[in-house]
Formats: sequence, structure tokens, C-alpha cells
Amino acid sequence: MFEERLKEVQDAVEAAMQAAIAAFPQSDLRDAMAYAAQGGKRLRAFLVLESARIHGLTDAQAMPAALAIEALHAYSLVHDDMPCMDNDDLRRGLPTVHRKWDEATAVLVGDALQTLAFELCADPVLGDAAHRIELVKALAVGSGAAGMVYGQALDIAAETAAAPLSLDDIIKLQAGKTGALISFAAQAGAILAGADRAPLAAYAKALGLAFQIADDILDVEGSEETAGKRLGKDADAGKATFVSHLGLAGAKARAAELVAEAVAALEPYGPAAERLRDAARFVIARDK
Amino acid sequence: MFEERLKEVQDAVEAAMQAAIAAFPQSDLRDAMAYAAQGGKRLRAFLVLESARIHGLTDAQAMPAALAIEALHAYSLVHDDMPCMDNDDLRRGLPTVHRKWDEATAVLVGDALQTLAFELCADPVLGDAAHRIELVKALAVGSGAAGMVYGQALDIAAETAAAPLSLDDIIKLQAGKTGALISFAAQAGAILAGADRAPLAAYAKALGLAFQIADDILDVEGSEETAGKRLGKDADAGKATFVSHLGLAGAKARAAELVAEAVAALEPYGPAAERLRDAARFVIARDK
Repeated sequence: MFEERLKEVQDAVEAAMQAAIAAFPQSDLRDAMAYAAQGGKRLRAFLVLESARIHGLTDAQAMPAALAIEALHAYSLVHDDMPCMDNDDLRRGLPTVHRKWDEATAVLVGDALQTLAFELCADPVLGDAAHRIELVKALAVGSGAAGMVYGQALDIAAETAAAPLSLDDIIKLQAGKTGALISFAAQAGAILAGADRAPLAAYAKALGLAFQIADDILDVEGSEETAGKRLGKDADAGKATFVSHLGLAGAKARAAELVAEAVAALEPYGPAAERLRDAARFVIARDK
Repeated sequence: MFEERLKEVQDAVEAAMQAAIAAFPQSDLRDAMAYAAQGGKRLRAFLVLESARIHGLTDAQAMPAALAIEALHAYSLVHDDMPCMDNDDLRRGLPTVHRKWDEATAVLVGDALQTLAFELCADPVLGDAAHRIELVKALAVGSGAAGMVYGQALDIAAETAAAPLSLDDIIKLQAGKTGALISFAAQAGAILAGADRAPLAAYAKALGLAFQIADDILDVEGSEETAGKRLGKDADAGKATFVSHLGLAGAKARAAELVAEAVAALEPYGPAAERLRDAARFVIARDK
């Protein structure tokens, strides 16, 4: 049931994303944007569409917001994979943009995908202008110098720090790096509906942390073939992670607790939020 | 008179920009953002504030839009200066971000400044949400894969092209690379006021082209010390420019014609637009 719905979201997002990019003038840049924005779990888009659905909005009414978060996520991956950042050759099972094209293309593709994300937030399909401008603001706060980019900068700074990060530092870093975008995604539906965001914010906070712990576990236990990206990076780099602090069993127990918290936070929405509950369970069960 | 007003805008924009960046959490990233966003002619901010003024809006009411275009411009410079792009060591008389910090910081600073630009467009000070969302849309179109980034990608592609660009190709490239942001800046006031943008769009089209021709002339005739950046790059690279196609005298004559066109386009605004006319004359008289 959850897997079917996720597959449905993946297919709809893929088609809509490629159509949005096809609207740009033909160029190498456009080809590379389409390449970088394809594939992925589309979990963030799923959170947008499901949080919209429990507020009475259809997939079509919320789709530009779902595409916005996926375009923003794709931009961050393209830039993070660059040689001066994480220096990765593989992403979603394919060569990274700077490997398939070059670094200049990777810079420009990331830049253009970020712009596209904000352009999508302005789409009239999303309804009321006041809600769209709230969406722009939430996306900017989540992805900018107080959110994702801030987390990424802390992560890079940590690599040259004298001592490994404490667990509190890692939680702070994670809150920016992956937490901010997941938080945006889960609240997007409430923003578009002009509704109270508090329950979804609580859900997203627990979910984002569980997601990052699961990523750390995957980095240790996962298969590179299934994940479609390089694994074991953190251990190789001697980096402090949830696993290095809590151990594998401890990290799994903490992630399970957080999923229970996330599920509990959805209580106000009743049975309508069942797929969001499934998403939280999926986050720690996934193999990529 | 024009110089005084430009100085006034420079000072106000500098203070407001640094305040906007100071609102982020303390970090190296924030320091580097402040560094990258300082200085410059602030011509784009001037165009925003003056186009707002002729529509009855005060500097304070339009300031976040002026900061937005300057943040976006600064992000584009930081990324364009990177080794994989134009590989420049000097910008606004100071070491470029990747020279003073490193490439990873340059990527993240550019990313965060782009995000900041869109966040600023959402500022309630700018008034009506419908106008703010129009501003977001215009900024995205001007700076994204149909505007500035597209122009930059064409410029890079031209470097490896078999034949030098034709004059028509250069005009097309310029329309994206510098024209799109100038066009946004000049129309911002009309967008914020919900007014007809056509006269300002015509003004901006001529002004943007005149600006690029003046840049090409400056690249040949200017002083690196005054300009605060490396010059003579296009000739060194054997790149086709307005000057290589039209000659110095021909390029100057064409720029002067375009300024006359820009000035004429402002006729509907009467004497209120005098400073925008001065700005057009400044664009071809500047030495940096």
C-alpha cells in the first residue's frame, strides 16, 4: 500500500519534473539539469503530496511544491558531489554531473536547479499568493545559510576540526543538513492550506533525525549497488556519526524511538495520516 | 546629482546587506557571505530603488528587492570566479572567495546568497503578497536556466566552439548573462507597484546591451587598478566581443545609440525618471 503510493508519486514526479525542465531553451545545461533531477526515492515529494492531501489538496494542486523540494534536493546533491566538496563519482547509480560533464556544468546545473525550485513555488497552481510566498520563505529558510547550506558548511568545518564532533554537535549539524529540507517537505501541505503547522513540524523533526541515523547505519551496513552511491565514507574519513557514538544497535534503537515519536505527532490527523506514518516506518527500513 | 544619489544608494544598500547577513548564525560561511556581498557599484540596486520611486515607493519599501538583486549578482560573481569557470583571483579589488577561503566555501557562499535573494523577495516590507510572488517569478526567470545561468552556459560553450561567435550570437548570450538581471532590476519597481512594466522593459533592454558593450570596451581600455578585476581577458582568450566585431569606435557609437534608446523609453514617466536617464548615461561613462 505504502510502496504502491510511493511508486505512484515517483512516476508522477518524474514526468512532471522532466516536463518542467523541458520548458527551458535547448542546451547542454538543460540536458544536464534533466539528468541531475531524475531518479531518487522522491521521499521529500511524497511528504509534500501527503501533507497536502491530509489538508484536502490534490496531487495536482501541490505538485509544483513537490517538484520544488526535489529540484532543491537535486541541486544540493550536484554541488555536494563536486571534487571540492565530497568528491563523489556515483549518484543514484549514475556518474555524477561533474564526471559526466565537467565541474563548470556541475556548478551551473546546481545553480539553475536552485532557481527552478523557487520558480516552482511561484506557480499559480499552488493557489493563494500569500500561501505561495510563505512557501518561498520556508524553502529559503530550510535550504539557506540557516538551514541545509549551513549544515553542509558545519560538516566541512568538522573535517578539519581538532576533535571529533560530540553527539549534540552531530544533531545540530543534521538539523541543518538533512533535517531542514525534510521539515519543509512535511510542512508544505499545511503552508499551502494556511493551516496549523505544529503537528507536522513535530513529525518532521523526529523524522529528519531518524532519517539521518538511518543514513549513518546504511553507510555502514548498506550495499553500494543497491544504494547507487559510495558507502563507508564516514568510517574511512574517521568521522563521528550516530553509529560511532551510539553503536549499531544503539543507533537502531534510537531511530526506532524517533519513528514512534514521529508517528505519535500525527495523532491530530487521525487515519488520514496513515501514509505519513508508513513513510516514517519506511525511513528506517529502506536499503538506499 | 546622479553621483550623490548613487553614493547614497551604495551606503544604504551596504548597511542593509550586512544587517541581513548578520541575522544568520555565526559561522565561517556567514563571514564569507558578508565578504562576497560587500562593495560593487550597486547599479542594479539603484535601478530597483529608482524604478520603485517613480511608482511612489520609498527606498525603505523597496530595499529588500534591491538587496535581492545584489545578493543574486554577488552569488553569480562568486561562482563565475571559480577555477572551473573564469578562474579569477581578484574581484572588486579583493581576493576572490575561493582564493581567500577555498572552493568548497565559494560553492556554499554562492548557493547561500542565491537562497538569500529569494528569501528577501518574500519580505513583508515589500507589500502585497501577489506582487512579491511576481517578484520571485521575475527573479527566477531572469537568473535561471532561461536567463543569467543560461547566458553563462552559452559563454562557456563558446570557448570550445569551432568558430568565434557572430554578433547576433553575442547579443543573444548577453541578453541572458547580464541583460536578464538588469531587466529584472529596472522592472522591479513596476512589479512592486503592480504597474505596467513595458516602458521599463524597453529601457532595460537597451540599457543591458549598452552595459555589456561598455564592459567589452572597459576590458580593452580600462585600468585594472580602477576596475578592481582582471582585464584584457577576452582579447587574451581570442574571444569574439562587441569590440572585436564593431571596432572600438563602432562599439562606442552603438553604445551611445542604445543609451539614447534607453532614455527615450522613459518618456512616459516625465521628469521623475531623470535619475534613471542619468544611470543610462553613467553605464557607458563608467571606468569600472
